[in-house]
Amino acid sequence: MRGVSPKAMRTKFQITILGSSAATPTSLRHTTAQALHFHNRLFLLDCAEGTQMQMRRFKLPMMKFDHIFISHLHGDHYLGLPGLLFSYHLLGRDKDLHIFSPPGLKEIVEVQFRISGLKPVFNIVYHELTKAGEIIYEDPYLSVETLEMEHRLPTYGFLFREKTLERNIKKESITRHNIPIEAIPGIKKGEDFVTPSGKVIPNSRITISPPNPRSYAFCGDTAYTEKFLEQIKGIDLLYHEATFLHDKAEIAREKTHSTTLEAATLARKAGVKKLLLGHYSARYKEMEGFAREAREVFPNTTLAEEGDTVQVGENGDNS
Amino acid sequence: MRGVSPKAMRTKFQITILGSSAATPTSLRHTTAQALHFHNRLFLLDCAEGTQMQMRRFKLPMMKFDHIFISHLHGDHYLGLPGLLFSYHLLGRDKDLHIFSPPGLKEIVEVQFRISGLKPVFNIVYHELTKAGEIIYEDPYLSVETLEMEHRLPTYGFLFREKTLERNIKKESITRHNIPIEAIPGIKKGEDFVTPSGKVIPNSRITISPPNPRSYAFCGDTAYTEKFLEQIKGIDLLYHEATFLHDKAEIAREKTHSTTLEAATLARKAGVKKLLLGHYSARYKEMEGFAREAREVFPNTTLAEEGDTVQVGENGDNS
Repeated sequence: MRGVSPKAMRTKFQITILGSSAATPTSLRHTTAQALHFHNRLFLLDCAEGTQMQMRRFKLPMMKFDHIFISHLHGDHYLGLPGLLFSYHLLGRDKDLHIFSPPGLKEIVEVQFRISGLKPVFNIVYHELTKAGEIIYEDPYLSVETLEMEHRLPTYGFLFREKTLERNIKKESITRHNIPIEAIPGIKKGEDFVTPSGKVIPNSRITISPPNPRSYAFCGDTAYTEKFLEQIKGIDLLYHEATFLHDKAEIAREKTHSTTLEAATLARKAGVKKLLLGHYSARYKEMEGFAREAREVFPNTTLAEEGDTVQVGENGDNS
Repeated sequence: MRGVSPKAMRTKFQITILGSSAATPTSLRHTTAQALHFHNRLFLLDCAEGTQMQMRRFKLPMMKFDHIFISHLHGDHYLGLPGLLFSYHLLGRDKDLHIFSPPGLKEIVEVQFRISGLKPVFNIVYHELTKAGEIIYEDPYLSVETLEMEHRLPTYGFLFREKTLERNIKKESITRHNIPIEAIPGIKKGEDFVTPSGKVIPNSRITISPPNPRSYAFCGDTAYTEKFLEQIKGIDLLYHEATFLHDKAEIAREKTHSTTLEAATLARKAGVKKLLLGHYSARYKEMEGFAREAREVFPNTTLAEEGDTVQVGENGDNS
């Protein structure tokens, strides 16, 4: 693949904003939902009313989502789920669907299937979240762990961490040192190569480092808290709610939400690379103030806007 | 109010289409909901996912709805209700809200308030529908009665009938016959006027007829049935679902839905003045076929399109 830069060749890792409004939708903004696209997997983060229509509008393949993470059981974070599940049923989904949420969601879903006289044609696997700092999902390339939010109901954030890839062996080293195929897995893990004559070729001479693993934290409804600060240190992209501009800090505290400056302060303390704000109170028509205020504290701030896709790790190049 | 025609002076009676899609939404069409605006009252007919956003988009005053009628408990007809109720709660609604639906909806709503840790700040009055042909709502100007649909779950249509207004006394008759004020209520009800000398002035000479009372039937999900034919005879506007074009008549029957021709046939048999179609299967991108097919049987057919407002009784003039 000559001419394709290593950047462009990295696995896809991006999120698409499906909703950015807090508590109640407006005529233009939906409540919270995000699609996370990693390689060939799609994960859904919260599922507010209208999420299935948003998926269709933004051409996300609805049937490919196999894992849904619900931060907490306030309506503006889960009300689109029953509709999505009914649609999966009607469209004949056959794959398992994994749903991660605080306890209670199963009851909400099951009562509706029962009263509708329907039994889902696919299997729903409920994973109840009961503590923070736990790895709740893992595959060879990615892990997801819970973060502890500060909110009225039990609420979790989700930290998606790409796993460190193996080292890349330089092609010319293989020929030059005549490296046999059975030695390759070890070298990719970082071992030195020992020639038949006993000469040690240091790993750093024959391999190049893989790209830095990328990471994304979704921090839904929360008041300002440093409870999860250590977990998100240095991550590539932090989504943090900012329901209010900072002149409403008192209301924010009362409602266990955050302001622009609080989100930006946390981003700065955690040394994240980029901050994404969302969950704007329906009272705001113009969003410029959110970016302006947050950037005073944390310049690399961007605003969630519906339909936008945000790369995790600047197209994969964090070096 | 000189220069204002009697037509334009009639009480408002119109519906606004908030959703027109069957079963699952598309990127452009929501599932079923309609706002009925009669005089200064707003009624909601079904409440699919996204209804509260549609109300905002079409500038319907959300807080003014006091009566919600849910035809049946398939998700595409009620899934927007919990979100609307949560919004009413958050916005501090204080008026009672009346919800009419088949049994089960109360449980669906209550489990969600309970799990959210919220107690609605307003009173919800649930009216469980258990039979057709019953008057379930009545005020001095309007009544609503249930219609029996043919569907997999217990499903009701809703017939809104304006009450017959009193007769209008001609101003010149009052002076000519010197009609005393206490005789007026009786004359307005149709009594003749008897002068002090005993002469009988027939009611028809001194009054003019009020405009014809108008009527609207909302017939949600149903297979073709004549069960409610007598009730809708001669009404001004019939909304009847037409999920499929007629080449899918077999699928329609199987799924207990109707086709264009079936809806049009019922409209013709009932001698209604106008037919409104909706509840289109998501498989259809172009809607022209629906109008074309239905008009072969019933020429005065119109198609529900989101955001459209349809007058009941052609601006009140059905004469």
